[in-house]
Amino acid sequence: MRAARFYDRKDIRVEDIPEPELKPGTVAIDVAWCGICGSDLHEYLEGPLFIPAAGHPHPISGESAPVVMGHEFSGTITALGEGVDDLEVGQSVVVEPYIIGGDVDTGPGQSYQLSKDMNFIGLGGRGGGLSEKIVVERRWVHPVGDIPLDEAALIEPLSVAHHAFVRSGAAAGQTALVGGAGPIGLLTAAILKAEGLTVYVSELSEARKEKARSTGVADEILDPRDGDVAERVRELTGDTGTDVAFECSSVPVVLDTLIAAVRPGGVIVNVSIWGHKPEVDLPSIVLKEIDLRGTIGYSNDHPATIELVRSGKIDLKPFITSRIGLDEVVSGGIEQLINNNEQHVKIIVNPRA
Amino acid sequence: MRAARFYDRKDIRVEDIPEPELKPGTVAIDVAWCGICGSDLHEYLEGPLFIPAAGHPHPISGESAPVVMGHEFSGTITALGEGVDDLEVGQSVVVEPYIIGGDVDTGPGQSYQLSKDMNFIGLGGRGGGLSEKIVVERRWVHPVGDIPLDEAALIEPLSVAHHAFVRSGAAAGQTALVGGAGPIGLLTAAILKAEGLTVYVSELSEARKEKARSTGVADEILDPRDGDVAERVRELTGDTGTDVAFECSSVPVVLDTLIAAVRPGGVIVNVSIWGHKPEVDLPSIVLKEIDLRGTIGYSNDHPATIELVRSGKIDLKPFITSRIGLDEVVSGGIEQLINNNEQHVKIIVNPRA
Repeated sequence: MRAARFYDRKDIRVEDIPEPELKPGTVAIDVAWCGICGSDLHEYLEGPLFIPAAGHPHPISGESAPVVMGHEFSGTITALGEGVDDLEVGQSVVVEPYIIGGDVDTGPGQSYQLSKDMNFIGLGGRGGGLSEKIVVERRWVHPVGDIPLDEAALIEPLSVAHHAFVRSGAAAGQTALVGGAGPIGLLTAAILKAEGLTVYVSELSEARKEKARSTGVADEILDPRDGDVAERVRELTGDTGTDVAFECSSVPVVLDTLIAAVRPGGVIVNVSIWGHKPEVDLPSIVLKEIDLRGTIGYSNDHPATIELVRSGKIDLKPFITSRIGLDEVVSGGIEQLINNNEQHVKIIVNPRA
Repeated sequence: MRAARFYDRKDIRVEDIPEPELKPGTVAIDVAWCGICGSDLHEYLEGPLFIPAAGHPHPISGESAPVVMGHEFSGTITALGEGVDDLEVGQSVVVEPYIIGGDVDTGPGQSYQLSKDMNFIGLGGRGGGLSEKIVVERRWVHPVGDIPLDEAALIEPLSVAHHAFVRSGAAAGQTALVGGAGPIGLLTAAILKAEGLTVYVSELSEARKEKARSTGVADEILDPRDGDVAERVRELTGDTGTDVAFECSSVPVVLDTLIAAVRPGGVIVNVSIWGHKPEVDLPSIVLKEIDLRGTIGYSNDHPATIELVRSGKIDLKPFITSRIGLDEVVSGGIEQLINNNEQHVKIIVNPRA
């Protein structure tokens, strides 16, 4: 079967590899669509990061580069391994793409995303969504009902946003500021809106502001060039500031803005990935008793996320900005996102085309 | 009466001023002892900071420099204003030294320390502990029973430590790392130990390590020169890290150590005051889903703090390292703390001597 494999920085190859084997407790899936994630760009430009470099096998998967890429994918079940009796061949599914130690409790309420040596399918081994077929442990397979498979490929990043929302402790009726309207900022805003919050989005880029506008995820879109965002947020919230804020830009000045714009006692969740250690306005975090919270991946977020989409509270279609075949994954996918970043939200790949 | 008043940076004068007037709803107190706080040093060296500069009256107190200093004090009730019927003349008391707007709810569960324009008695006006007498609103007066008045002067900084503990969400049986064994680090460790946590303290200074040892507030004292503190904390906690950590040093590398030493999903409370915006290891905060929480002052912490001392769970005597009279407040107090910082924990002043 055909697959896109990461060999090294700027070296991703589409090639023929053996099909994965169905084993007891696993599920065989024909991949329908796979999204390209910001972390895939980081691997391409600066990696290997999450990907175990050649000759340095991951402690859980035992694999190292070359590895199949792609962790945001949907597909159709083609076969069920021995002992899997609660799914059906032909079902539409997505995969919660974890590589997690066999001794870790992945049950309800468990923070298995924080377990030792955690990694992701499509980065740390065990195949990936940028291939025609994949075989995955039953635990990580989630049926999506009648959600179209192209939209379903966006459930993984939407689960990241859902987990960030859970981490914030926010509730319906509260106010939120999202810093940055890139893919994860837009999806975070979509979750917050669906959960009944009033959502303000801060963004400079015209293309991204337009996306926030057309998708309806923001109650107000604030452009820092039109005046101090924190001041305008205070005006909009009765001189207090928002209850929660979400850093989705990896830009220090945006984090400063969120710290200034959140109310005393408020919560900021950092959803973005930082390549360096930024200066942080700790004096204000102290004086306002702000909680600055990290968030990574998801834990038991997929069912709730899927239900938000299945019930129609979130429409993922407008976030798909391009569809390509597997051969174009670098030129029409990764390079496109690097060079025309602001024009795109999600590029999805059909590995069978 | 005699009082120490802040005029400007490096200009604190001991002088005669009129006695404060007893009004309805207030309590007259003869001050017994008043501690010198790190924030008093900041005002002296870099101020006015919290203190409203001359000609810039504070919006709630209406006062500006010169103002009486001192916010860590104990004393004896000498008179009760009209309507105050739940206290008695002769009672030993401490003051929760807040200046807070009249429309703010200061009841149970309220975060009144975060209210607009909050300031402190002894910084923002309304007299201070570095004077013979003070008159305070009933709300802020807390009886201390038979706690000796010298020790009672330390209840204010101990309440800061108690509030930091509350902010951490920590519970008996958990593990904590305290970064820095200055006054607030030692008092934080004392609270944590009294609340049933296992307490590790990281400290370089021999004098401070000795204080942590002799006061018994630490289960282990870790010196960064003896090896990586985070690594040793992981060894001590079964390869996980502590549940909570407390930044009490304002030193960036200490904050880095806490981020490395706390367990995934752990909480770090920043108790120290930062004069600048430090670089923060946000990448690790994200990957470990750490909560970094600010804390300022206290809110409804005094009764629990007083009970910890009254019941004997915390002995404050060993934290008093010098006793001086009012005339020595600069030479024997503030300057002493600046020049011999590591030798002292708390210097307390008798404004009547």
